Amino acid sequence: MENFITVTDVENLEFLLEEAKRTKENPLKDNGIGKNKTLGLLFFNPSLRTRLSTQKAGQNLGMNVMVMNINEDGWKIETRFGVVMDEDKTEHIKEAAGVIGQYCDIIGIRAFPKLIDREEDYSEPVLMQFMQYSGVPVVSLEGATGHPLQAFADIITIEEFKTKKTPKVVLTWAPHVKALPQSVPNSFAEWCQSAGYELVITHPEGYELNPEYTKNAIIEYNQEKAFKNADFIYAKNWSSYKRYGQILCTDKKWTVDAKKMSLTNNAKFMHCLPVRRNLIVTDEVIDSSNSIVIKQAANRVVSAQVVLKEILKNI
Amino acid sequence: MENFITVTDVENLEFLLEEAKRTKENPLKDNGIGKNKTLGLLFFNPSLRTRLSTQKAGQNLGMNVMVMNINEDGWKIETRFGVVMDEDKTEHIKEAAGVIGQYCDIIGIRAFPKLIDREEDYSEPVLMQFMQYSGVPVVSLEGATGHPLQAFADIITIEEFKTKKTPKVVLTWAPHVKALPQSVPNSFAEWCQSAGYELVITHPEGYELNPEYTKNAIIEYNQEKAFKNADFIYAKNWSSYKRYGQILCTDKKWTVDAKKMSLTNNAKFMHCLPVRRNLIVTDEVIDSSNSIVIKQAANRVVSAQVVLKEILKNI
Amino acid sequence: MENFITVTDVENLEFLLEEAKRTKENPLKDNGIGKNKTLGLLFFNPSLRTRLSTQKAGQNLGMNVMVMNINEDGWKIETRFGVVMDEDKTEHIKEAAGVIGQYCDIIGIRAFPKLIDREEDYSEPVLMQFMQYSGVPVVSLEGATGHPLQAFADIITIEEFKTKKTPKVVLTWAPHVKALPQSVPNSFAEWCQSAGYELVITHPEGYELNPEYTKNAIIEYNQEKAFKNADFIYAKNWSSYKRYGQILCTDKKWTVDAKKMSLTNNAKFMHCLPVRRNLIVTDEVIDSSNSIVIKQAANRVVSAQVVLKEILKNI
Repeated sequence: MENFITVTDVENLEFLLEEAKRTKENPLKDNGIGKNKTLGLLFFNPSLRTRLSTQKAGQNLGMNVMVMNINEDGWKIETRFGVVMDEDKTEHIKEAAGVIGQYCDIIGIRAFPKLIDREEDYSEPVLMQFMQYSGVPVVSLEGATGHPLQAFADIITIEEFKTKKTPKVVLTWAPHVKALPQSVPNSFAEWCQSAGYELVITHPEGYELNPEYTKNAIIEYNQEKAFKNADFIYAKNWSSYKRYGQILCTDKKWTVDAKKMSLTNNAKFMHCLPVRRNLIVTDEVIDSSNSIVIKQAANRVVSAQVVLKEILKNI
Repeated sequence: MENFITVTDVENLEFLLEEAKRTKENPLKDNGIGKNKTLGLLFFNPSLRTRLSTQKAGQNLGMNVMVMNINEDGWKIETRFGVVMDEDKTEHIKEAAGVIGQYCDIIGIRAFPKLIDREEDYSEPVLMQFMQYSGVPVVSLEGATGHPLQAFADIITIEEFKTKKTPKVVLTWAPHVKALPQSVPNSFAEWCQSAGYELVITHPEGYELNPEYTKNAIIEYNQEKAFKNADFIYAKNWSSYKRYGQILCTDKKWTVDAKKMSLTNNAKFMHCLPVRRNLIVTDEVIDSSNSIVIKQAANRVVSAQVVLKEILKNI
Repeated sequence: MENFITVTDVENLEFLLEEAKRTKENPLKDNGIGKNKTLGLLFFNPSLRTRLSTQKAGQNLGMNVMVMNINEDGWKIETRFGVVMDEDKTEHIKEAAGVIGQYCDIIGIRAFPKLIDREEDYSEPVLMQFMQYSGVPVVSLEGATGHPLQAFADIITIEEFKTKKTPKVVLTWAPHVKALPQSVPNSFAEWCQSAGYELVITHPEGYELNPEYTKNAIIEYNQEKAFKNADFIYAKNWSSYKRYGQILCTDKKWTVDAKKMSLTNNAKFMHCLPVRRNLIVTDEVIDSSNSIVIKQAANRVVSAQVVLKEILKNI
């Protein structure tokens, strides 16, 4: 593996899933592979799970890890080309990437979209420029279009809990007070289909995701209908892709509650976290024994470790 | 030791003090004990000594250490239960604790009180919820009710400098411009009594601490009388416990100065730091040869290392 | 080496340059020398290169590294003496230095000047007080008067790229929107002369640096004349030393562009970064094959590693 930005960077998902299993059984089995290698984790945005789990994954492989809130610890970064830099941005991403690539063997980057200009966001300027100018492998820690370390952890989790070869997985939109990226649902849709699951996506009209990511998933506007016979319910809010970055609906009828869960095939409840309780999901559901959100988060170490190992193999 | 939140988590203080001595003589003697174990240090508030000394203690034991300013690096944490999370808090402490417990073998947390609602503060919501939901041992890096790593370091320091079996130790309130927690004096009062010292606490009326912590300590409202024959003067400001969180006095007559120190039995001067010079204590006193504040701070590595080692033994 | 604050801390530059060469050839050759030693990196100001490269240098030597944004992670620091600390500063530098010296074997500090009071800035209060009160070696990560780790890296870079024994090196002022310290040009001027280069400094009138640093360098107010036959162009903005901290000129005629570079002897282009593109230097020049800014930044690891090793030898 050279970079880890989209599902297309995965050559063989089955192998990665087997590797995930082996990693989970013995997290320290590859402790020497990262010795004297440096992992740089750069955050343009807040992070709890990604920050800690990727750091831990690197340490499990024996890597040195350097973590940086790039805009606060360092200098504000300009991502546009050709501009006269006489405003508030002090450093151009071209230099930042080039320099950090001299200090790190692998760079992980989180760069959320601004949710204003769809075309700009979906070109993933920060990730792409780091790929182009750093000269070292780049791992997405969530961009505008995807959150592949999360999606890989999600699939690892579903594999652990599924009771049939092809489970019915339902990705449901849920209400939120802020406009959120489409990154998590995009990646989840891609990876579920790579894994061969039956994927149904349910959301209010206007919340259709980019079809390049949802591909053959069934779109069902009736949430209750979608939940029927589901084996996994994956809740997540996102802002509109069509009317880009807008909040079109705040209807709490979409909140996942026990009544809706009762329509399912005793489905497991999943969310990438952080989750706003009683808005996305009721306390009752997330605190129930069918909620596997903590185990899902635990698998973030596993997915990061497998990805870093695959990249380290090629360095 | 399972957790380290209050003095009651200590089974055998004498043993811990012997262990502290051994640790100080050879800080790297237990360097293997923490290998491949992860210490997470979470700060809801600023920290210099605790941040660096606990990190160093973990490294001396061979641990991997991950440090996080949780509200800034991650997401703002909701600690109330049952609320609809539609305001500024993005993540519930129940998930934060559950998730971080998946990534860390021991979690240290600093969570200062808000000094508004005494009952809420003294229930130590953050520490208690991390203990309940993380599934791993929790170490207080200072809460509302105590700062036990500081108190343990204080006792280590007094043991090093005392010239009689039962020294007279005086904890004196001193003026300050901001309302501060009662955590340090609470813990100091508890630990001094566990160590068998003669403890006198002196402060203006209205600054009585919670008697559950001061127990049998003598309360003396006359500072000069209290200082007589003292072997150790421990200065500290705190806000009122009775009129909770309020500043009742700013009288600089309470500042520790050379004249007052001359009333003592050539007492050593102590403070947990940071200290506001010429408000809590005059330059003359803190810069005198009787001031042991830096040696006291050095013992923060020792106390943290002993505590982490005791916890690691049980993992 | 005991400390690393100014060029005078260097006893033998030739030896350091040879050591730099050996370090670059095999960065891990001294991996044991820093084992169980702790490097504390304290930042009063933003940093990208210095933060990451010095961290990496410490790790290459096997050190434990603790990084801290001191005013944000810890307490606001008072640097004045004798004051009643009843304002916003919580901790005095005397205690901060004394305490951190207990936890670290070497302390690196970045403390930019305020650019208001020249005498105060040029007394380097933070660096000097850490040297005096920490009790351990101190490394400047850039102060008011110098940035020696940068200058050492610059000389390493020039040595790699020079094609004659005594290259002509031109330090050129360039316009900027904010008032910047004189630290980088001061150190560059000192180190270039220690290395025996022909140094020409060009800037608008009023931007003369402190002659204690520029010594025998030729000052040439005509930028084009200065560029003639140059082997290296080092661009940098600084605020006025004479009319201290002021911006006297914002004339983009001073921006380094291709036309000016064509006057040189096919000179390499250098800058310490971060650089404001199309203000300090045009895209065309910094993106040209003669630009060595990234290689220069890569040498920051080398200079830091050599310095840390020299200091570790004496501990």
